[in-house]
Parts: sequence; structure tokens; C-alpha cells
Amino acid sequence: MSRFSFNQITAKLWDLPDLVAGCVEAGVGQVALWREPVTEYGLERSAALVRDAGLSVTTLCRSGFFQAPDWFDDNRRAIDEAAALDTKVLVLVSGGLPAGSKDLAGARQHVADAIAELVPHAAAAGVTLAIEPLHPMYAADRCVISTWDQAMAIAEQHPVGQVGVTVDTYHLWWDDTVLDRIARAGERIAIYQLADWVTPLPQGVLTGRGLPGDGCIDMAAFHAAVEKAGYTGPIEVEVMNAELWERPGREILDATLTSYRKVV
Amino acid sequence: MSRFSFNQITAKLWDLPDLVAGCVEAGVGQVALWREPVTEYGLERSAALVRDAGLSVTTLCRSGFFQAPDWFDDNRRAIDEAAALDTKVLVLVSGGLPAGSKDLAGARQHVADAIAELVPHAAAAGVTLAIEPLHPMYAADRCVISTWDQAMAIAEQHPVGQVGVTVDTYHLWWDDTVLDRIARAGERIAIYQLADWVTPLPQGVLTGRGLPGDGCIDMAAFHAAVEKAGYTGPIEVEVMNAELWERPGREILDATLTSYRKVV
Repeated sequence: MSRFSFNQITAKLWDLPDLVAGCVEAGVGQVALWREPVTEYGLERSAALVRDAGLSVTTLCRSGFFQAPDWFDDNRRAIDEAAALDTKVLVLVSGGLPAGSKDLAGARQHVADAIAELVPHAAAAGVTLAIEPLHPMYAADRCVISTWDQAMAIAEQHPVGQVGVTVDTYHLWWDDTVLDRIARAGERIAIYQLADWVTPLPQGVLTGRGLPGDGCIDMAAFHAAVEKAGYTGPIEVEVMNAELWERPGREILDATLTSYRKVV
Repeated sequence: MSRFSFNQITAKLWDLPDLVAGCVEAGVGQVALWREPVTEYGLERSAALVRDAGLSVTTLCRSGFFQAPDWFDDNRRAIDEAAALDTKVLVLVSGGLPAGSKDLAGARQHVADAIAELVPHAAAAGVTLAIEPLHPMYAADRCVISTWDQAMAIAEQHPVGQVGVTVDTYHLWWDDTVLDRIARAGERIAIYQLADWVTPLPQGVLTGRGLPGDGCIDMAAFHAAVEKAGYTGPIEVEVMNAELWERPGREILDATLTSYRKVV
């Protein structure tokens, strides 16, 4: 249980103070926060809230979205937010294709270039940029980085600790090469996140993820691969599920803990 | 235009005789047929209908679904149906995971083994088995063969002409390695199909495909790759789109032809 981290998006509608109190009550010592609710509650106020509760923040989710005109300033702000929360890892979701573009290779190159521009600021802040490959079904509109190999190829242009990769079971499970690659990724694994694949996928394919164990992903195989890589860091449960969100926050946390104990 | 083939699923609700008449009227000489409507109309009757109209049948879609208990008999029947229609190519969609299974690697191995068992019958019938890698979003429930490389690895265990691979832009466009691989695939390309990627994806992610040119896929890059491979065969437009299906068949054919001329 010491490695468990509750990712805020799993209980998207739970107010931050209630989430923090709920985690403390449940004996959970780690959370992953999202930028929007942190900004809404106030950055310094959020940092004080989790600090005073004795929680650590495993990741800040998320910046990236490098097709946006203000990507440079926004990502620098995100790095500063991560540092203010004493978070060592900032998750990057690259964003999709620019509107009207069919140039996927160009968009991917832009992501690599943009990350290179951000590395000095992140390194100075002590924040690791964790490139998250998203499932290929998001390549057009959410994340042009679709595979482990693409993310690693960008990360490896920078020192370990400055740029890493996010292992999210939901996005990577289909790839027959990924477990071997993860097992050999060593310290490039910046964070390990669990969600399960359940069908049918909902309209928009965003909010139909399952709690670990509820779908068809072989979680044991992923655990073995990250362990082989030497990763001993936090394990976040990060599930976006419209039905789950309707339940009270504490119920969601308890269901998440039950599912975590079942698969880890 | 001589390479254009109208895939029947693009006008799913169009009766076969009307589709055949519509193609003749429009000067279209090639169609791809689906097993269910062919069976419904009658196999011999369908064969006679297209033959008498002077149409050739570029592919029969589709068998596979190797997790079904009767996969062996059903796929042998599909090979016989292809031969009866004088179709040289049978498209194989592998099927998803068996119910309750998390063994994706095992399911993939089973597909390879099953295809090996079918090859003698297919070769005797003069039918090429065209393994179709489907987009990774279908890996759980529709097709465990998710990438070009997986399909090629199976095809290459057999002689050219007996087992090949289906190039479908919709399923492969996200893969940063695929264009180079296609360009080097030579005679392994059994058929080339066009559909475009449009978002948001609909519930179930099956019926939201776009006509070529309506989405974000760089069709010119695919054409260059299949040309480099030396492929000179038919180019099918195969689009599953719930809104398109609502239109009269002849309108759909005309829209398909317009879109084909725009991108090829």
C-alpha cells in the first residue's frame, strides 16, 4: 500500500479539501493532482493543504498540448506549479494535430523540439518531464505521441531525471513490443499508472476506462516489466469513467483501493 | 478510375442487385463484397449477378474471428465463397480476446496457428488470405492483430500469394513506422483500402469513419508507399459511417467516387 497514489481524476468531482481529508482518513499518503482543480482552489493553498495533511504529490497532470499557440509559457507555468506542489514529475500529453493538418510526422517532431526547449527550465526546477504516450486512438485530437518507442526516443535525447516516460497500462497494453521495452527502460520510467481496458468504448473514447482488474489488461505482466526495469516509485490509479464519477468521492477512493489490492 | 473498387459496406443498406446496377451505371467495374449480404442473397445467385454485370470482385470481406469455436469450418466456407465469387482475396479480421481472457500474446499466437491450418485449403482454392491489422482500439473485442508488423510476421511464414496483408489507411495511419514498412512489403500487399480518420469517435468506435479526404490521414503518403512497394492492384474505398448509410445507395456511390478522385 505504501506505493499507492490516488490520482485526482479518478474522483473528478470530489472537492480538493474533501479528497485530501478522505485520503488521510483512508491511510493513503500519496495523491496525483490535476492542474485545473489546483488552479481553481489556488496553487499556494493547494500546496499548503496537501503539505499540512502530510500527503505527497506523485505527479502533476498535465501539460503539453504543444499545438496550442501559448505552449511555451503554459508549460513553463506548469513546471512552476509542479515545483510549488513539491511534485517531482510533470506529466506531458503532447496534444493532437494542429487544426486542418495531416502532418503527423511534423507534429511529432514539433513535440520533440518543444520538449527540448522546456528541459532547462524543468531541470532548474527539479521537475522531471514525463512524456505520456497515449493510445493511438487519440493520435488525431489529443496526443500525437502514440507509442512507448516514440516517447523513449524523445526522452533519450536528454539526461535521465530530466525527461522520462509515463507507463500507463491503458494506453500501452495493446503493443506486443512494450513489455520488453519497459523492462529495459531503467530509470526512464517516471511514473506508473493503472487503468483497465473495458469495451464498448464510449462516444469520444475518453471516459470509459475501468478500475484495474475490471478489464482485459494483464496487470501482472506490466508489474513484472516495471519491476524488472528497477522502478520502485509510486503506482497511481488513474481512471476516467463517467459512471464512477457519479459516486461519492470516498466511495470511489474505497473502490479504487479494493481494485488496487486485487491487482498489485 | 480503373483501380477503384466500391466496397459494399460503404453502402451497407443498398440491396445487392441495386448496388450492382448502380456500379454499372456509374462505370465502376470492381466491387468488394461482404459475406453476410452475399449469403442473404445467395452465393451462386450473387456470383451470377456480378458476373453477368461484368463486375469483378476485388475482395470478400471477411472471415477470421479465430476465437469462435467453429473458426476452422467457418473460414474454410469463406474460402469456398471467395472462390465461388471468383475473388482472389479473402480479408481476415482476427477477432478479439476470448471472453474473460487477458492473454493477448496467446490470442495472437492462436491467430498465427489458425492461419497456418487454413493455408492449404486457401492455396488449393487460389485465394490469398489477407490479414488485416485493425486499429489498436479494437484489440480487445474485434482484432488482436493491431499492427502492420504483426500481420507481416504471420504472412511471411507462408509463400507470397498464399498469405498477404491488407493495407487500410484507417487502421494504420497513426503508426510512425508503417509507411516505410509498406514501401518494402512488395507483393505481400494483398489489397489497399481507403477510409479517413474523423473525430470525435462514436460510441463503439465502429461507424464513424470518414470518406477519403474528410479526415486527417495523409492519403498521398500512403499512395506513395504502396506504389513504392510495386502494388498496382485495386484501391477499395471502405467506409463504415452511420450517417452515410442513411443516404440512398447511388448518392453514397457518387460521394465515394468524388472523394476517391480527390485523393487518388
